[in-house]
Amino acid sequence: MLTNLRSDRVRSVRALSRRSVRSRTGLFLAEGPQAVREAVAHRPGHVRELYLTGPAAQRHTAIVEGAAAAGLHVHQVSPDVLAAMAQTQTPQGILAVCSRAGLTLEDALGALAPDPIVCVLTHVRDPGNAGTVIRAADAAGADLVVVSDASVDVYAPKVVRASAGSIFHLPLVVGVPVGRILASLAARGVRRLAADGSGPTPLPDADLRGAHAWVMGNEAWGLPEQIRAQCDDVVRVPIHGLAESLNLAMAATLCLYASAEARRLGRR
Amino acid sequence: MLTNLRSDRVRSVRALSRRSVRSRTGLFLAEGPQAVREAVAHRPGHVRELYLTGPAAQRHTAIVEGAAAAGLHVHQVSPDVLAAMAQTQTPQGILAVCSRAGLTLEDALGALAPDPIVCVLTHVRDPGNAGTVIRAADAAGADLVVVSDASVDVYAPKVVRASAGSIFHLPLVVGVPVGRILASLAARGVRRLAADGSGPTPLPDADLRGAHAWVMGNEAWGLPEQIRAQCDDVVRVPIHGLAESLNLAMAATLCLYASAEARRLGRR
Repeated sequence: MLTNLRSDRVRSVRALSRRSVRSRTGLFLAEGPQAVREAVAHRPGHVRELYLTGPAAQRHTAIVEGAAAAGLHVHQVSPDVLAAMAQTQTPQGILAVCSRAGLTLEDALGALAPDPIVCVLTHVRDPGNAGTVIRAADAAGADLVVVSDASVDVYAPKVVRASAGSIFHLPLVVGVPVGRILASLAARGVRRLAADGSGPTPLPDADLRGAHAWVMGNEAWGLPEQIRAQCDDVVRVPIHGLAESLNLAMAATLCLYASAEARRLGRR
Repeated sequence: MLTNLRSDRVRSVRALSRRSVRSRTGLFLAEGPQAVREAVAHRPGHVRELYLTGPAAQRHTAIVEGAAAAGLHVHQVSPDVLAAMAQTQTPQGILAVCSRAGLTLEDALGALAPDPIVCVLTHVRDPGNAGTVIRAADAAGADLVVVSDASVDVYAPKVVRASAGSIFHLPLVVGVPVGRILASLAARGVRRLAADGSGPTPLPDADLRGAHAWVMGNEAWGLPEQIRAQCDDVVRVPIHGLAESLNLAMAATLCLYASAEARRLGRR
């Protein structure tokens, strides 16, 4: 059992709280049973190190068994060591060091099935919002999430947690300038739909047949004009009452589910 | 200008952080420019006291003018006093003491327009979720929000803030046992749709014509069996990818917007 709070191992795991270290090493943390379970189940090849306290190992036998089946070594650690490694207040005795998928945009686009639904995030600053949008994309059956370089680091612990494991479910491309994302989508015949409260097209009237990408902007639920101008349509979620707007996660959920419904109707 | 941190006034405003005090006095706080603006614009008769710092009064002239037009007295306070009154970290120099609408369920149901959309919350514990659902109900054009007694206090500062002003836009009934809510809805011919991941009816197949109420449960996106059994249908948001579930706010947004869309199509 690892008990030394000052070991190099504790220090190197703890250092993953810094974006610069995540970026340089290509590693990030999955904290808590849900994130670790999904990482082990869906991205076992990307799980580098797995740490559990004794009580957590007893509570989460399915995770431990899944890890063993995937050939992953489980390190038992003291609660103090786990707390020193973790960035969340309640890691619940379990965390994993994972490596990024490292997918390039071209590879990801090349691997898409016909008529994909793509979710593009740019200028998103809040970790909770980013994670929730990734979760919505997953639930709606989207095929790819692309996060521009002008966004929060999706490998930050709060994003990973807010995604509720979805970060391990979907192909994810990060760090590409938004202009290049939009150009690459167009080159592949993927229509770009900006989601913005100022858009002329209400969501129920948007054409969601065939390959398309939702381009979601920052928390104030807006996109810079030059990005909107590069898209094929700008779509707004209609507001029926007195509310000024919806938040990003709500709007993204509605847009992505409208795509899912269009796909379902198209396949009938 | 009020500068005395130890005044009875500061103490009585500050005491509204406690649910018991809110409950006994029927008062609650709106903090920050968005909440105060909506309170002054839509519920001026319920704004009892209005406090601004000098800089905030200069920044928010429209609110000050709206308050004057509504005959509301504006108290100027020092930043220290405002901080002592406030419960949020960043009240941005402005807050209001408001009184609850005090609407009874029977009065609210009696005042509904034909074919209303109602949103019922029960067993919701997280203030952010409750506020976001109220915001979604507002944006979707719902006619009434009813919050059962077995729920977070919707007049808690975090709920008010998360509602982004929507708490002042919609008729809101609180503190009624859920069984009575469901019975009263049925007596008025309002169909009760439980929103629950275990439901047999996928959202796109739900019958959303005419008067109906969404019954939303706790954060784990579930409702106790006895509540589901009292509803006319149990509806689930379909999950297309690998995500385990959606969070309450996302699911509520999708259900309420599906109702809005059904209403729009019905009126065409």
